[in-house]
Amino acid sequence: MDDIIRFLEEKKPFIDSKIREHFPEKMDSGYLEEILGKTRHEYDLDSINKSITEPVWDILKRGGKRWRPTLFLLIAKAMGADLEKIQDFAIIPEIIHNGTLMADDVEDGSDLRRGKPCIHKIYGVDVAVNTSSFMFYMPLAILIKNRDTIDPKTLLWVYEIYVKEMINLSIGQGLDIWWHKGKADGITEKQYLQMCSCKTGTLARMAAKLAVALSGGTEEQEEKIGRFAESIGIAFQIQDDILSASGGKFQEKKGYGDDITEGKRTLMVIYSLKKASEGDKKRLLQILDMHTRDKELIKEAIDILHKYGSIDYASGVARDIVSDAWKDIDPILPESDAKKKLKTFADFLIERDI
Amino acid sequence: MDDIIRFLEEKKPFIDSKIREHFPEKMDSGYLEEILGKTRHEYDLDSINKSITEPVWDILKRGGKRWRPTLFLLIAKAMGADLEKIQDFAIIPEIIHNGTLMADDVEDGSDLRRGKPCIHKIYGVDVAVNTSSFMFYMPLAILIKNRDTIDPKTLLWVYEIYVKEMINLSIGQGLDIWWHKGKADGITEKQYLQMCSCKTGTLARMAAKLAVALSGGTEEQEEKIGRFAESIGIAFQIQDDILSASGGKFQEKKGYGDDITEGKRTLMVIYSLKKASEGDKKRLLQILDMHTRDKELIKEAIDILHKYGSIDYASGVARDIVSDAWKDIDPILPESDAKKKLKTFADFLIERDI
Repeated sequence: MDDIIRFLEEKKPFIDSKIREHFPEKMDSGYLEEILGKTRHEYDLDSINKSITEPVWDILKRGGKRWRPTLFLLIAKAMGADLEKIQDFAIIPEIIHNGTLMADDVEDGSDLRRGKPCIHKIYGVDVAVNTSSFMFYMPLAILIKNRDTIDPKTLLWVYEIYVKEMINLSIGQGLDIWWHKGKADGITEKQYLQMCSCKTGTLARMAAKLAVALSGGTEEQEEKIGRFAESIGIAFQIQDDILSASGGKFQEKKGYGDDITEGKRTLMVIYSLKKASEGDKKRLLQILDMHTRDKELIKEAIDILHKYGSIDYASGVARDIVSDAWKDIDPILPESDAKKKLKTFADFLIERDI
Repeated sequence: MDDIIRFLEEKKPFIDSKIREHFPEKMDSGYLEEILGKTRHEYDLDSINKSITEPVWDILKRGGKRWRPTLFLLIAKAMGADLEKIQDFAIIPEIIHNGTLMADDVEDGSDLRRGKPCIHKIYGVDVAVNTSSFMFYMPLAILIKNRDTIDPKTLLWVYEIYVKEMINLSIGQGLDIWWHKGKADGITEKQYLQMCSCKTGTLARMAAKLAVALSGGTEEQEEKIGRFAESIGIAFQIQDDILSASGGKFQEKKGYGDDITEGKRTLMVIYSLKKASEGDKKRLLQILDMHTRDKELIKEAIDILHKYGSIDYASGVARDIVSDAWKDIDPILPESDAKKKLKTFADFLIERDI
């Protein structure tokens, strides 16, 4: 476990330098023209940097584990790719991920992100919504810049992976939003996992699929390794939800019971609703729909989750999803140091307490 | 003029049927799996349709001239393309356009869109922000579906056009937002035109460039015809701004002086600030920064715009931009009925009073 934390820490400066290479902290005309072509009139660069580049870097500098690019690099390495040639693509899902944080915070009406006021609290909702969009497209500049180094078939494959995952992302987010609003009754575990597959599995899956496509992989590998990454993403989410309903170090980052306040239909909630007495079920739904910040009420809801063993249950589901997916890719990846790291990495993301 | 209004009206049902073909009013599993691949778990289709499809269709059904797809079709026809094969791509910029309306309304904090409450007023900011993103990606399903009918080189070209224009769109919007906030001083006419080129010219240019790429055009044609379409987009925006500062039929759709309330730095404002006396200049900026709905104040600001002849000036700029661009494409398009319509069409968009 400590090994992989160290490994992630070691990779971070490299990933950050790649991000900086493709997204400078100040855009100038040369940078914009390289991607967008010659300007007809004249950019007001100062306003562009203030309304876009600054919020982009504000959120990027707040940290994060950068585990999606690391996942990309590990898979590419396990597949024997020429990393030098394709490693820039690793940052695509990371930039998008940070864009989704910005948009999600507007959508959830959040106040804090990684200990600081959310981007829309500092720059306004307008800037946050627009900049999040920018972060969804700008990473594709890497495809444009590599137009002549990657063969057209692979490049098309990369575009398709991007498009499908971005559609998945909005579908997953749409479901999550709708459920928060308490507008869907009787969500099943299968529907919950599908939502996670769309929302939380997406960017891990994108990282993995991009790595496979750019490493000269096959469609079977794309499917299986993509599914493995997706399962990590889902398990990561489940673990996040579990941590939010527990004590521990994690609470410094995310408030205890925030998910209850948001009214989130987590796997633990879905399981408890299935197992609980009529009285507990009614009470749990009532508290979730209150969107309350009252600590007593939040504790009451979390106690119901514990009472029916939903935390252990969710933990088990997370573990099973990942180990099932691992069984699928174990035979198709040759033994290597990168493959070993990949396995430890997956275990870490599920079992972490930070 | 009447001819082209009739022509637009005639094309509308066809365009709407194409939109419906690619974006059904209810998504089912078959539809989603065709684009996204086989589902591992299970979609909560009801929630997807309520949180995404319904707001998509709510805004689409509110109308609009659908002039971007018509522009695509006219250009493709003028280039002698096999329309049957490529006409589905015409709706891409239209769907994106409707997504931008949804996002812009959130960003501007607007109340009404086409006479009805804005999407975020009905479904919530969260749904509107997420659905607008969905509308930016979903049209690319058309590329995925046509993966085997369009050659890879052309398809890559299409993706690149999309990416560049989406980046342009967020840069343009970022500038516009920043200027609304009164955070940029002394915007020049060149900077204004660049903002318009990014923000308003973008989707017209995307329509045109897609048409050229899919009609087997050259890069020179892409550049010149793209610029012509961009100039229509810019002129369309300038005309919108002029109409908002005038009386007439247009007022039923957009309120008189809304741009003043928003604090918009239109071409008329920029020109007036250059020409006006110190007193008028100061007063105009003061009113713009108030974001007022007071009718007397709005009238006072608009009177300043009129006083310095900025309406005639803006009109002239709009006309010149389009006629300059036309001069460039006139020699490279063979004479045809479609080409004639293209010219009338451009003139209509500039001179319209609706």
